[in-house]
Amino acid sequence: MSTALLTSISQDIIARVDTRLNAFFDDRRHQANGYGAHYPHLWDAARTSSYGGKRFRPMLVIHTHDELGGANSDAAIDVAAAFELLHTAFLVHDDLIDHDVVRRGIPNLAGGEAARARRAGVDDTLAAHWGESSAILAGDLLIHFAQSLVARIDVTARERTALLDLFDDSVFITAAGELADVALSAGLVDSELPNVLAMSSHKTASYSFSGPLRAGAILAGADERVLAVLREYGDLVGTAFQLRDDILGVFGVEAETGKSCLNDFRENKITPLIAYARTTPAWSSVSHLMGKPDLTNDEGELLRGILELSGARAYVEDLIAAFAGDACGLIAASPLPASLRNDLINVAHSSAERSA
Amino acid sequence: MSTALLTSISQDIIARVDTRLNAFFDDRRHQANGYGAHYPHLWDAARTSSYGGKRFRPMLVIHTHDELGGANSDAAIDVAAAFELLHTAFLVHDDLIDHDVVRRGIPNLAGGEAARARRAGVDDTLAAHWGESSAILAGDLLIHFAQSLVARIDVTARERTALLDLFDDSVFITAAGELADVALSAGLVDSELPNVLAMSSHKTASYSFSGPLRAGAILAGADERVLAVLREYGDLVGTAFQLRDDILGVFGVEAETGKSCLNDFRENKITPLIAYARTTPAWSSVSHLMGKPDLTNDEGELLRGILELSGARAYVEDLIAAFAGDACGLIAASPLPASLRNDLINVAHSSAERSA
Repeated sequence: MSTALLTSISQDIIARVDTRLNAFFDDRRHQANGYGAHYPHLWDAARTSSYGGKRFRPMLVIHTHDELGGANSDAAIDVAAAFELLHTAFLVHDDLIDHDVVRRGIPNLAGGEAARARRAGVDDTLAAHWGESSAILAGDLLIHFAQSLVARIDVTARERTALLDLFDDSVFITAAGELADVALSAGLVDSELPNVLAMSSHKTASYSFSGPLRAGAILAGADERVLAVLREYGDLVGTAFQLRDDILGVFGVEAETGKSCLNDFRENKITPLIAYARTTPAWSSVSHLMGKPDLTNDEGELLRGILELSGARAYVEDLIAAFAGDACGLIAASPLPASLRNDLINVAHSSAERSA
Repeated sequence: MSTALLTSISQDIIARVDTRLNAFFDDRRHQANGYGAHYPHLWDAARTSSYGGKRFRPMLVIHTHDELGGANSDAAIDVAAAFELLHTAFLVHDDLIDHDVVRRGIPNLAGGEAARARRAGVDDTLAAHWGESSAILAGDLLIHFAQSLVARIDVTARERTALLDLFDDSVFITAAGELADVALSAGLVDSELPNVLAMSSHKTASYSFSGPLRAGAILAGADERVLAVLREYGDLVGTAFQLRDDILGVFGVEAETGKSCLNDFRENKITPLIAYARTTPAWSSVSHLMGKPDLTNDEGELLRGILELSGARAYVEDLIAAFAGDACGLIAASPLPASLRNDLINVAHSSAERSA
């Protein structure tokens, strides 16, 4: 997502979240010194995994809280940091599931730790196992400590319970989407479009959009009507965001997206783009290439050509525009303050139109 | 651990914990129905993974709370259930790290899900990937929801913070031990005995003994002196328990332990047993067998012979007796109520002497 996501946001908010995250990682790293030579490294690697993101989930929490007149700034920072830790955990475990060792153009946690082990003289198989084990444990720690931050915020019991419910939902729904994603790749479920669209939405919308937005609103004491609007808006924009991600995954510029445009094909990722293409006659000429572990650039080009030719890309572009349009319509007619309405309309546009 | 761990415990306590866990899994499974065909299966598999354990962590929480005159019974049940969920999460991810597909004599979560995929016609490679992905996600969900239970208990802010600190420590220390375990197997750290003993202790003692015992005490309003005794006792007994586990891992009766006696050799597990043997001249004749993926029964027998001959088994048996003895001495001299002292001395003995 472009850093123009929320143009009205001051760099100050990002700096406050970074300060909170750094304090968290400093504490854990310090504590880790008593537990063997590699544990501090794991915490460093976890911290590095959280760098390079655009912190847009934290921004959604804090900006929504502030614009709705909230007075729980410290709690908002903690919850914002918690969403970023959760996001990092999901990235680390998602990469593990997808066998990716590169993220944002550099080796990810598993890839970096495997490389470190190889430099220490460990053979390739054991080094890969070390990288994967490190990724399992780092993700576990981040999931746990994200929730620990939320559990400790100093707000009313009612607000804390609402946030815990919301965090439960975010984790529950994201895991459902991840599982459905793997089930589709393995051919364990029909790749009918409604299934595939639901999977796409579950994987991202809740923890990236409707969760952070509602968390900010809960901390600002917003009423049920506002929370309902933010949930529906978040689900729409989150789905548009994920569909853009699917398009960038195969059509994106690697230098901008930081990941290979062949991986989704190699891993037989059944995105809505692919699910649509599979219903068209053109698909039969390339279907055997999906899931091919050593897919070449030329074969990738062939698949991309069919995704264009079959109308799949245009179909998904239309979906993105429709979801973003519905989100904007919802916000325009909502009781939210004018400046927040404006910002959320911008968020919808940049989520739909981003190039990285 | 034998069910005689706490002979004075009524079956009623176990039944209450089971009821709480079943209610939790029922709720999640019901909610999962809205998220695709496989998500309810994942929750069923997670529930199954929590069966078959002896619920001794929950028993330690509740029994300690009750014996110290606590009045937070409902909270104790929730925290007890949380420790059992955390334990299940660690088992599922530990098996994943160790490439084990059997636990307690039956296919574990990854193994069971892979088998289910194969029965649905998925090829072996994709089915294994489905099993592993399911295990990653199930562990993530259990870690998250364990903490969610703790975060919601209805106690004073001070008690909740103390429990959150304790839960943080349990997760942090266990992950440290797991990482050190993999580092030792990969040859990334020296297998000197102090390193290996620390790893053994970290992997188990905190979340299985000192965590549950102190959680029960915190909920009963115990003072710092009692908490300090329980921490030290828990670390000693937990270490004895893990050392017994290491011995059972290679010398145990498979029908009783439910797992293969070759796995630890095949995975090059550097337990204190192995670390000691490596310092003896006899080891050189078998060292090449460690980490051999297709180790035979005869080769396993050879390794076991050297572990006896080198004095490694006797050394670890002495360590177990010493840790359990220290734990009993500590409890005998403690200010704990007589009946709890008696029970904890029994727990120390059965942790040290169990056969499964």
